[in-house]
Amino acid sequence: MNIGIICTGDEITEGLVQEQNLYYIAKELAPLGYRVIEAVVIRDEIELIVKAVERLRESCRLVVITGGLGPTFDDVTLEALSIVTGIPLEDDVSYLEELTKRFSSRYGREIPEQLRHQARTLRGSIPIENPSGSARGLFFTNEHHADYLVMPGPPHELREVLANALQVIRKPEHILVRRTIGFVEVTEAEISPILESLRRRFPHVRMITRADYAIGPTVFLIAREEHSKDIQRVAKELSERFRGFAFTTRGEDFLGLLVDRLRGRGLTLSTAESCTGGMLSSALVSVPGVSDTFLGGVTTYSNTSKLSVLGISKDLIDKHGAVSKECAAVMAENVSGVFSADVGLAITGIAGPTGATSNKPLGLVYSAIHSRIRQEIYESVYTGTRHNIMTKASYGLLKKLWRMLFRQ
Amino acid sequence: MNIGIICTGDEITEGLVQEQNLYYIAKELAPLGYRVIEAVVIRDEIELIVKAVERLRESCRLVVITGGLGPTFDDVTLEALSIVTGIPLEDDVSYLEELTKRFSSRYGREIPEQLRHQARTLRGSIPIENPSGSARGLFFTNEHHADYLVMPGPPHELREVLANALQVIRKPEHILVRRTIGFVEVTEAEISPILESLRRRFPHVRMITRADYAIGPTVFLIAREEHSKDIQRVAKELSERFRGFAFTTRGEDFLGLLVDRLRGRGLTLSTAESCTGGMLSSALVSVPGVSDTFLGGVTTYSNTSKLSVLGISKDLIDKHGAVSKECAAVMAENVSGVFSADVGLAITGIAGPTGATSNKPLGLVYSAIHSRIRQEIYESVYTGTRHNIMTKASYGLLKKLWRMLFRQ
Repeated sequence: MNIGIICTGDEITEGLVQEQNLYYIAKELAPLGYRVIEAVVIRDEIELIVKAVERLRESCRLVVITGGLGPTFDDVTLEALSIVTGIPLEDDVSYLEELTKRFSSRYGREIPEQLRHQARTLRGSIPIENPSGSARGLFFTNEHHADYLVMPGPPHELREVLANALQVIRKPEHILVRRTIGFVEVTEAEISPILESLRRRFPHVRMITRADYAIGPTVFLIAREEHSKDIQRVAKELSERFRGFAFTTRGEDFLGLLVDRLRGRGLTLSTAESCTGGMLSSALVSVPGVSDTFLGGVTTYSNTSKLSVLGISKDLIDKHGAVSKECAAVMAENVSGVFSADVGLAITGIAGPTGATSNKPLGLVYSAIHSRIRQEIYESVYTGTRHNIMTKASYGLLKKLWRMLFRQ
Repeated sequence: MNIGIICTGDEITEGLVQEQNLYYIAKELAPLGYRVIEAVVIRDEIELIVKAVERLRESCRLVVITGGLGPTFDDVTLEALSIVTGIPLEDDVSYLEELTKRFSSRYGREIPEQLRHQARTLRGSIPIENPSGSARGLFFTNEHHADYLVMPGPPHELREVLANALQVIRKPEHILVRRTIGFVEVTEAEISPILESLRRRFPHVRMITRADYAIGPTVFLIAREEHSKDIQRVAKELSERFRGFAFTTRGEDFLGLLVDRLRGRGLTLSTAESCTGGMLSSALVSVPGVSDTFLGGVTTYSNTSKLSVLGISKDLIDKHGAVSKECAAVMAENVSGVFSADVGLAITGIAGPTGATSNKPLGLVYSAIHSRIRQEIYESVYTGTRHNIMTKASYGLLKKLWRMLFRQ
């Protein structure tokens, strides 16, 4: 079932707050078989809302509108809907009584005129309870045109009203099945031709790719329930074709899965960081329950601290520099000793904007993995801002650890 | 100048990722005098993009399009724009050469056919550099119709391309003057009544408040150039009224300013972290040129590492626990010794979701500042997700350091 979403609010078009409802509505409705074909964000103006509704109802069976239900002068969503449908607004007398009672019991004062507006509703619509606020949602069904679902704008209220709305709104004909495949160390451009041939062979499976610059591409597979076997087949082919590069076929989070696998092998980790400044260790610590796997780390930002805390020789730094393969290797080895960890990870590099030299460019990063049985050292040149380089270096090393330990 | 924004991407309409670009674009452009009248989120389908562009160019001087520049079959934004404008696409030969070189030097493989598409551009358009990805932006100017600005969809790429685009796109007629005042350790509710009275006295100055949960409230002052004196007056009154709480009246970034002030005093820092896992040190390292101020830090995530790396006595941990005032104090003192730094910062706490006990609740955080002349220890209970608690604890301690050293 095609649906359209209209989010109203000057605070959004002015760039003062991040719009959140569109994502939440799509995330909740898409898996149920609703198909969002367009979402519009507009100012709180009657004519703009009227135009948007008139346009979306042409191609949608359901038009969802959020915002503009509050008590202030710019809350005009119901007026707009009344204009579009030609159906008058009326007061819901019993809800007005309830509002009046609620207000006086909470504040001990008479209900302000503005709040009385919130008892207004479109004649013939179904009210939807809002446990967190005074603006209820409403559903208006139409046999011949689009249905309308109106919900309040504050995100925490919207979530509760949407849950109630799902009991009331028209159901889609088809249930959807989904699968999520995550990749490391392979590019979207390399996955793309394989997907194209899979698309030809499995026309009932929708395939959506997203590139996350820190981790790697993710492919989402979506199909109607009757084609769920096709989804399994596509997932299997993709993970076999990219064996060693697909870290999940069930949508797990990369960091969570990495920590899980390390725990399964009983391996402990420690980190030594220079240019990433603690980002590598805080990425690991973002995973709940990581304490039996991650023992600790050091950020040796100054050269002196590399000498004193990690026991790196002054000779080594004088000869090769702090940004060098040699330094990364010894950092990884020594930090595993400091924390008595099975594995030591190390990163040293030039995150910029200054610090580059003629033979060591901006973005040059050396990283290393040290364990008792294996050592690997990597040289990379990352592009982007200081933050991007730090992020790519941190996640890049975790991806390499994953490939080294768990590639099939 | 009226502008419209089109964000494309099935991953957004499918509810798979949160749309972020609309907010970022509005946040950057609105203060410069651009007026966002509508933003549309649509699927990656040529006809939908064509329709949206045709509609928005009627009411907008500039149409901004993000997404659909990648290498996969559903990246169709340029085709759509070519249809709308009637102007053909062509290959940028020198950019194709650059892409080919870059890919082979990073991956050691030949450039995939799909990636070659990213050298395509609209004839007569101005390319906009993308330091973080292979899809460049483009600006196409039109004397009689709307201008078009096309940018890649991944948010980190968009941010860099937008910064470059601002050098190229048409400027709005009215120049706006803005001033940004940042506060620490004071709430929005306390600032709000003062703002109300300032609003009455200075009607030409728009005042917009945003609350950042990690740092504190920010007040943006915006006015046309001819009212810039009023902006100065409002900024002066606000910073005098909240003396000691306003860390900037010129919009500097809190971390940058803190590091600057520490450098000015010739103070060096070191950090010892438990529940924040390196977030405190990586926040400091996010500031370019921090290396003469921040010497380094340790993340002692396991109790054993607190003993071995920081030399904390087993007795202390047995008696008070690792999450205690006593442990925080010794962590701060000892880490300043380990790195020979003037100041030691320490954080130990329970970031959750597990680890809480009957007398130590979730979100309990002890933090400490140690210098030769002064020690302070703080107890806080933060709410929110694991990530929120980590962020609040890290920035909370930096704000306390700022207040301790630099309050006027």
